[in-house]
Amino acid sequence: MANPVLVEVWRGNRVESAHRGAVAVCDASGAMFAEIGDISYPVFPRSAVKSIQALPLVESGAADALDFSDRELALACASHRGEEAHVALASSMLSRVGLDAEALECGAHWPFNQDATLALARAGRSPSALHNNCSGKHSAFLCACRHIGLFCQGYSTFEHPYQAIIREVMEDVTGAPHDADNSVIDGCSIPTYGVSLRSLAYGFARMATGVGLAAGRAAAARRLFSACMSEPFYVSGSDSADLPLMQAAPGRIFVKSGAEGVYCAALPELGLGVALKCDDGAGRAAESMISAVLARILRRDEGLSSRLEELARPPVPSRRGEVVGEICPTGAIEW
Amino acid sequence: MANPVLVEVWRGNRVESAHRGAVAVCDASGAMFAEIGDISYPVFPRSAVKSIQALPLVESGAADALDFSDRELALACASHRGEEAHVALASSMLSRVGLDAEALECGAHWPFNQDATLALARAGRSPSALHNNCSGKHSAFLCACRHIGLFCQGYSTFEHPYQAIIREVMEDVTGAPHDADNSVIDGCSIPTYGVSLRSLAYGFARMATGVGLAAGRAAAARRLFSACMSEPFYVSGSDSADLPLMQAAPGRIFVKSGAEGVYCAALPELGLGVALKCDDGAGRAAESMISAVLARILRRDEGLSSRLEELARPPVPSRRGEVVGEICPTGAIEW
Repeated sequence: MANPVLVEVWRGNRVESAHRGAVAVCDASGAMFAEIGDISYPVFPRSAVKSIQALPLVESGAADALDFSDRELALACASHRGEEAHVALASSMLSRVGLDAEALECGAHWPFNQDATLALARAGRSPSALHNNCSGKHSAFLCACRHIGLFCQGYSTFEHPYQAIIREVMEDVTGAPHDADNSVIDGCSIPTYGVSLRSLAYGFARMATGVGLAAGRAAAARRLFSACMSEPFYVSGSDSADLPLMQAAPGRIFVKSGAEGVYCAALPELGLGVALKCDDGAGRAAESMISAVLARILRRDEGLSSRLEELARPPVPSRRGEVVGEICPTGAIEW
Repeated sequence: MANPVLVEVWRGNRVESAHRGAVAVCDASGAMFAEIGDISYPVFPRSAVKSIQALPLVESGAADALDFSDRELALACASHRGEEAHVALASSMLSRVGLDAEALECGAHWPFNQDATLALARAGRSPSALHNNCSGKHSAFLCACRHIGLFCQGYSTFEHPYQAIIREVMEDVTGAPHDADNSVIDGCSIPTYGVSLRSLAYGFARMATGVGLAAGRAAAARRLFSACMSEPFYVSGSDSADLPLMQAAPGRIFVKSGAEGVYCAALPELGLGVALKCDDGAGRAAESMISAVLARILRRDEGLSSRLEELARPPVPSRRGEVVGEICPTGAIEW
């Protein structure tokens, strides 16, 4: 059975491309608020669960010991765009434990933000691992390892004790197993685990409410979400789709994208968690899907809902900037 | 009814993303050799039909009058990567009719080839319309307009007489209507028309064989295909998927990608035309699909077929270059 078409790409008066997907929305008891498509198939959440992976940084006391503000905590949860401020902050996090870019095991790539890439090139420079969109998370891993007293080398591997700590946290929050059987390697070389959208939505509802989590874990989750919603630029970047979503309702919407069309989100005021995946992995479609899902959950707040619907329907421009089409969520995003 | 999954993206031992699509393969009589999914839905072929759009350049005598070699003809059919040689050749084509980049109506964008983009930035430069992947086609349009004696301004619009000439040629070759009803605007601002994969495959079989075309048109088609297969770099570029496909069997395979997951191809020795579209518009999937389709058509040539199967299965690397997954065509590409 195919998942339904959730987003269409229109050119003129005709659908040019179509994106299928599945969506789970539930509360912290696991009661489903909305469910579209197959929400049981294991998806790799990739970067969408960085906030859960950042819990040990706070719970261990490392964040306090290193005097991390909201910005550092946001960057620990980020897929940043490699802009100057992101790179400088990741570097500063590492320097507080006596490390530098050499310690990062995420690999280097040119910044996701094109202006940042062009600026680097114009300066005759090349990217380092600090420009990797995951450098904040990797720096946070290293900071926590140093604080706990774990060896740093190999911190990104399945076998390293810090990844075992993350597995324990991920299992506790999502209720789903995380082990060698469902483990594969993420783009930044750490393990990522196949988990259902149902379990991911449940985990994000628990992160948002603290329901069912130990007191220290609940407090750490609250602190991380609050940091991300206060400093959304440091979780994302100038041209990220996550930024305008969090800016649309400061402190009320947490969203985090993951590679291959994944989104996780939480609405603390409603106690809801959201997880979705575009079947084909397209970011443009996942961005439209999450915006439409949030708009429809929040439909009673008409101003906010219409802003979110607008974000769900970006224009398709020609190279000269004329609008020649539109990306549109379909009526299948409904309940 | 959903089209079948034709390509899967594996991470470790599990499918992370999946791409659906449809494929038509037929001969110049319109007899189907293979058919997968819905081949009647109108798709916008985008850049995949540039070789058909280049017929009037040759038929009008403009190509001869301007002393165009295989390289200029290839560039007229190209989605190039904005590399120095592409830009220089487009500029030279324009200069032969007394024009320059100012006359191009395709808009500017940074080169598709990242090294070319970085080199431009390092030189403190910005891209012009010559770097647009369609600048060869647009330059060819302008050359033909000058040769025929048509005014140049507005050459990209539906109303301009040169676009009417292209409509007539497209209708003759594909047998499908091209008019205001199925016209939308392409990324480079010219009209593109909704046509079925069945009609596109038929058109490419006719281009490859000349069957059913007037003698002058058949000769022009042969000359353009021959030019593209002789100079595949000028139809594509260093990091284009089209290049290794044409290099795999010089003079035997013509392929051309189009935006939003379209491919058209022709196998002159077998008299077959191919057209496919990935439903969601993903280039990575369309590249795997066309490689697998060609491998399976050419299965009796074991060496070539296994090279094409290899191109159909690119690895998925981490940012450090480890292989962590694979893009794989499915068994649904079969007949």
